[in-house]
Parts: sequence; C-alpha cells; structure tokens
Amino acid sequence: MWYQRQIQLTSSGRETIDITDKVSSLVRESGVQTGLAHVFMQHTSASIMLCENVDSAVRKDLETLIVRIAPDGDPAYQHDYEGEDDMAAHGRSVFTTNDISLSIAGGELALGTWQGLYMWEHRYEPHHRNIMVTVQGE
Amino acid sequence: MWYQRQIQLTSSGRETIDITDKVSSLVRESGVQTGLAHVFMQHTSASIMLCENVDSAVRKDLETLIVRIAPDGDPAYQHDYEGEDDMAAHGRSVFTTNDISLSIAGGELALGTWQGLYMWEHRYEPHHRNIMVTVQGE
Amino acid sequence: MWYQRQIQLTSSGRETIDITDKVSSLVRESGVQTGLAHVFMQHTSASIMLCENVDSAVRKDLETLIVRIAPDGDPAYQHDYEGEDDMAAHGRSVFTTNDISLSIAGGELALGTWQGLYMWEHRYEPHHRNIMVTVQGE
Repeated sequence: MWYQRQIQLTSSGRETIDITDKVSSLVRESGVQTGLAHVFMQHTSASIMLCENVDSAVRKDLETLIVRIAPDGDPAYQHDYEGEDDMAAHGRSVFTTNDISLSIAGGELALGTWQGLYMWEHRYEPHHRNIMVTVQGE
Repeated sequence: MWYQRQIQLTSSGRETIDITDKVSSLVRESGVQTGLAHVFMQHTSASIMLCENVDSAVRKDLETLIVRIAPDGDPAYQHDYEGEDDMAAHGRSVFTTNDISLSIAGGELALGTWQGLYMWEHRYEPHHRNIMVTVQGE
Repeated sequence: MWYQRQIQLTSSGRETIDITDKVSSLVRESGVQTGLAHVFMQHTSASIMLCENVDSAVRKDLETLIVRIAPDGDPAYQHDYEGEDDMAAHGRSVFTTNDISLSIAGGELALGTWQGLYMWEHRYEPHHRNIMVTVQGE
C-alpha cells in the first residue's frame, strides 16, 4: 500500500518548524499499520531533523553548533550568489539530512517519547518549502 | 512482505556497540530475498552508524572528531538539565543519524566488505536503548 | 514491485561525481510510478550526497568545510594504515551519509529543481565504488 502527499510550508526565515503532527496525520490517513514513512525535503538549503521535543533550547543550541561547522559569510566560500547565508545553508543541509524514514507500528509513527520531527530552514529570508511524504506498508 | 522487530540494548555509557549480527539475523528470519532493512534509533541522544569494522581505532578517532563538533559542557549551551553530556549528545545525534536503510540482496544484508553497523551511545551513563528494525521485500 | 541494480564507478581520487542520470534511468527501467529509490554506497570512505546542481563551486566549498571537520593527517588519529586521508575519509563518510532514499512520483525521481545526487569520493587515489540502487513501488 502506497500513500504519497506533499506538505507545503512557508518559513519565516532561519528557524525550526515542528512537522510531527502533519506527518502523523498522513500516516493515519494512509491506513498503514506496519510500515515506513519517508519524509523528503525537496531543497538543498533546508533540512529534515529528528530532535528532542520538550525543551526548545535544544534547537537553539543546535543552531550554536551548526554555525561553527558551516559559518555564514565565510571568506573562503566561492559560492555567494544569494548572500552570506547561501553557501552556509548548503553546508548545513549536507551535514544534517534531507530525508528521514520513520518506522510505523500499530498504525502510528513509532517515535521515541522525546523525538519530534522538524523542518530546519537555513536561509535568512522566508521560503516556500515542499516536503514529500511517502507512506508504505500493510 | 513486512517483518518488524525491536532490538533492546543497554549501553555501559558512551561507546559503540556492533549490531550487524543482530540485524543480519532479523533479515534471515524475515525470509526477504530482495529488499531493505530499516534500522531506527528511538532516541535523540544515540545514533545508528555505518563504520569500518576491522580496526576499532576508527571508532576511537570518530570520538576524537565528534567531541570537537559537539563539545561536552560547552559554555554556550542553554540546555543542560542532565549534565554536560546532555546537549552534546543531541548534537552528536543530529550530526550523525538515527535511521539507516540497508539493501538486502540474495537474502542477506548487502554490506560492503568492511562495513559494520553500530549503535553509538552518546551519554556518559548506561542507558536502555530501543532500536526498531523493519524488514521489507520479496 | 522491486528492482535492484548495482552502479559501479571508478573515481579519479577525491572528487564528486554526478549520479543523478544513472539513478533516474534505473527508476524509469523499473516501471515504478509511485515509490522510493534507495541509493546505498557499499564503502565507508565515500558518501552519497544531495547537493545544489548548478554551481560546481558549492561542491568546492563543501570540500573547504569538511576538511575542517575531518582533517587529513590529524596528529590525534590512531588509525592511519593507508595514509593521511584514511581516517579523514571515514570521518567524512560518517558526518555525511552512505544511504539516501528518494521519492518517486509520476514515474520519475521527485527531486527539487536544484537537487542533484552525487557520489563523493573521499580518498586521494582512484577507487572502484559499488552503489546499490533498490527501487520499489507500484
């Protein structure tokens, strides 16, 4: 059984957006009891992320860490068409991920108690983002 | 054909644990000849990792690298409820991964010669960890 | 429906190689209309990567970033059997990824406009690399 839908979101700039409920709803709509939900960001400057879902400071601290790995406006960058966050966003995307597959058990996403699913916008300006969700199973 | 089982492990603190044989056994039990095995860590402070499987120094060196990326007890962290390894563990998890899908061919995991599958515990203290394995195929 | 093929490539040393067309062709050959394509690097010193596909400077800049995270010949490394790029290659592999699943919609890879799929060779010398592609769907 295959069930495929696109989630469309508009970020307000660099931020994380909780998409757990949106994906959970699609899993329920699909009727799949045992299977997988594949969540795919169709862009190279935003990520899909599993993250602790209680304390929003965790996501602030992740921001602290990732700007060290992929700094904005690094003088070494050759690619800077769209500003100082352009290449940084591609780096942030590659060092995290664009696709995550989640287990489905008993008709629900089999997430741990403190696992939430997030979209992570890496650009400074608001962007429209397409996320393809493909649910399969029996 | 779908076959889903949970692996439960207890770490002895920060370490890597080889889970290749456990996952390989589940693939054989499933009877799947051609397909995929999805391995999912249901926690945000431990990872699933593919790694060179001959020289354990590789995993020691990965530890050397990852503490630079997500340092323990970084003074910039806002999230430190559970000690200096708390936020570091979330960072280590996000910069590696919680889910890996492996090809199955000829009824076996289609790993390269030197590929092993590991759980990577990021916390200092022993933790119970649940890993959901979902095998599908024909 | 399952369709599994191996892509074999020889790198000319550290570089990125665009494999989007190769994987797209396999998706078309499979006849799958709605589903997933799983792309798996069967090695621990090369990666599979989604990346911006217009400006090759993006991949040069990613190289600039990743050598900071997993430096060649770091004096702290214990694992150096095969030279200064040996352990660095394992680190680069773990901090990016070896497996990516891509959505298939309307019989084609559902990539964003600027998303390309690349193999990233991390070793200095040319290497033969096996990539297993598993296409499934309906």
